Amino acid sequence: MNIEIINTGSELLLGRVLNTHQQWLCRRLADNGYETTRQVAISDNGEAIQAAVREAMDRARLVIVTGGLGPTSDDITRDKIAELLGCELHEDPGVVEHVRSFFTRRKRPMPASTRIQAMVPDGAEVIVNDHGTAPGLVMSFRDGGCLIMLPGPPRELRPMFAEKILPVIKERFPLGGGFACVTFKSTGVGESQMEELLQEPLGELVGRGLDLGFCARTGEVDVRVAARGEGAAELVGQAGEIVRRVAGRHLYGAEDDQLEEAVVALMIKKGATLALAESCTGGYLGHRITNVSGASAVLMCGMITYSNESKLRLLGVRAETLAEHGAVSEATVIEMARGARERTGADYALAVTGIAGPTGGTEAKPLGTVFIGLATAGGVGTVHRINSFDRETFKFVTAQQALELLRQEIVGSEG
Amino acid sequence: MNIEIINTGSELLLGRVLNTHQQWLCRRLADNGYETTRQVAISDNGEAIQAAVREAMDRARLVIVTGGLGPTSDDITRDKIAELLGCELHEDPGVVEHVRSFFTRRKRPMPASTRIQAMVPDGAEVIVNDHGTAPGLVMSFRDGGCLIMLPGPPRELRPMFAEKILPVIKERFPLGGGFACVTFKSTGVGESQMEELLQEPLGELVGRGLDLGFCARTGEVDVRVAARGEGAAELVGQAGEIVRRVAGRHLYGAEDDQLEEAVVALMIKKGATLALAESCTGGYLGHRITNVSGASAVLMCGMITYSNESKLRLLGVRAETLAEHGAVSEATVIEMARGARERTGADYALAVTGIAGPTGGTEAKPLGTVFIGLATAGGVGTVHRINSFDRETFKFVTAQQALELLRQEIVGSEG
Repeated sequence: MNIEIINTGSELLLGRVLNTHQQWLCRRLADNGYETTRQVAISDNGEAIQAAVREAMDRARLVIVTGGLGPTSDDITRDKIAELLGCELHEDPGVVEHVRSFFTRRKRPMPASTRIQAMVPDGAEVIVNDHGTAPGLVMSFRDGGCLIMLPGPPRELRPMFAEKILPVIKERFPLGGGFACVTFKSTGVGESQMEELLQEPLGELVGRGLDLGFCARTGEVDVRVAARGEGAAELVGQAGEIVRRVAGRHLYGAEDDQLEEAVVALMIKKGATLALAESCTGGYLGHRITNVSGASAVLMCGMITYSNESKLRLLGVRAETLAEHGAVSEATVIEMARGARERTGADYALAVTGIAGPTGGTEAKPLGTVFIGLATAGGVGTVHRINSFDRETFKFVTAQQALELLRQEIVGSEG
Repeated sequence: MNIEIINTGSELLLGRVLNTHQQWLCRRLADNGYETTRQVAISDNGEAIQAAVREAMDRARLVIVTGGLGPTSDDITRDKIAELLGCELHEDPGVVEHVRSFFTRRKRPMPASTRIQAMVPDGAEVIVNDHGTAPGLVMSFRDGGCLIMLPGPPRELRPMFAEKILPVIKERFPLGGGFACVTFKSTGVGESQMEELLQEPLGELVGRGLDLGFCARTGEVDVRVAARGEGAAELVGQAGEIVRRVAGRHLYGAEDDQLEEAVVALMIKKGATLALAESCTGGYLGHRITNVSGASAVLMCGMITYSNESKLRLLGVRAETLAEHGAVSEATVIEMARGARERTGADYALAVTGIAGPTGGTEAKPLGTVFIGLATAGGVGTVHRINSFDRETFKFVTAQQALELLRQEIVGSEG
């Protein structure tokens, strides 16, 4: 079954905004057993929209169109598609009421222009927008084809798709015999190493139809197991058990889990507190941890000790240590971690020092050199890495290594 | 002139990676006077690639294909396009030598599989890859049509396109009479306010053919002025003068400038130092500032004072202030900023406290409440905002406001 996604918006073709809809929608579809065969982006231009939709309907049974449903003059998707399908538009009283109450709840007058969003092609199923005004629209074409229009703003599109559109797709295009899929998330191990770990233990299940996939991004590897047809759930369940048994120590979560979420959840469960001492990551570790709701129960404080003086003053690193070993050294990171833990009274203190670049490398300590220290009641453990990347990737990879060091410590101390 | 971009990669259609090529390429093309008319993403599937390229060549004079030029078995773009165009492949000795020396420089053996990247369709122009092994390829079709293949990794594609492909496009498709374009970047002012400021002063130039566009993202508004034909550069130059005169105080830069880059550059020029005291932004301000190469000359240290205790201990906020006004208050942010400045000896100290959500709001201090304080030799200035967004957008918008407060202070003290 062919599925095509059409993203409308002149700002996409001028490169003013990043198209995040494609990845998000493709991912949700794939994880529910539906593979997108093509994605197209076009301007807010009537002819271009109609041409793209016409071609997509020729090839695909499911066509999803995003954007152009709002109240401004360049929002023409609804009209152009109705015209293409030979439908008249009518005003839907339910949508008028929804738009009106949307503004009433926000204590704002309803702009007259917004009423146009209640114009609905004859025969279209109206999907109420719980996070905005423009509804989603589901239409049929030819023999069982389905065309779905979704509003452009991600905070409207995403919940609408997950809660209301996916059930429609599943009902209209049932998967014969079922589908199951799990994605495991890992860090600290390369793609080929993960492949080697799993290939043999999963070999028999792959022979029985298991689809095993790896996706490596810098600092992370996803392992995806999926199956179709009868017994899919059982096959994926067995695969999951094997993945957890063989590679469990590298897995921090599944699906959309983030490493920082896993770390914060583990620390909350343990009732433990954390302090940070960041040099080269410059606050990025603190940023990631505080992106997790509930982090205030865990993070006591962080110190971004970018200058040598601040390492002395805020963390109590000794001047001799800096003079003898340099700011980027194992000796310094040990004193940073120990100082942060002792001065804050936190259970754990994570310290990072390194050379982010693009300048500052030497023969002995090349660009990308990183020392990470973790202070616990039992002492300070350290890790030494060379992360030769651009500045932002360097920060990300270094933070992954630091968070993973902490996660392994907590998991290890429990097991 | 129609331009189409085709992004190949099964991982795109499975939603495992975000397609950043589209925005990046569309932006570069648009800023050089070339508007992309369609972008398509397809899997690493021979038929799908050939169908997409065939259709694009029917519509467009310039077709850019990304991905699938590497050494693994799913890298089939080069072969499939050569087949479609009826070309044989031959091994290019220059590319073999390039691949060999790429591995020699890295002191690694050259894997046999990588030699396939030297296979080049007959008649193709070879574009050497300065940051990887697979070359770019420029081919001709029909009457002056041009098909360009680019390697998929962004750190290879971007410099190759900017340095080597754009000149080819400009030579093959000269713009009649010229093209000029400038994008100004602003913060602290809404899209409609910016439109109101500029509409009238630029009215006459718009009448003479100036293309005036606004692009609003949360916390930022871009102003783009462009013109085509003879006198384009002069028209855009005049427009730029007017934009700077009328809206100059809101502009922090142009093209790809970031607000944090502007702030660090201003501080380096002034020889001034900075300290940070972050509560709700949790290190994100420090992260942004340390993303700028050279930030170590400016940033002395940052304190992520997430807990009340750390506000007392690290910054010297008084317990009575916290008890009487709360951690999220103007009184507290004043003491945070003053404490950070006095304790570090920095010229400027920027402090932030607020309620990021999703929990913790009250009637008097709703979710999104933020107080920002800037301590200077002259005292502490504050800003109070309600940033009602999800957690990450909240952090971004709050950091924009804090950086802009600092930028305005420095610019103001100079003027």
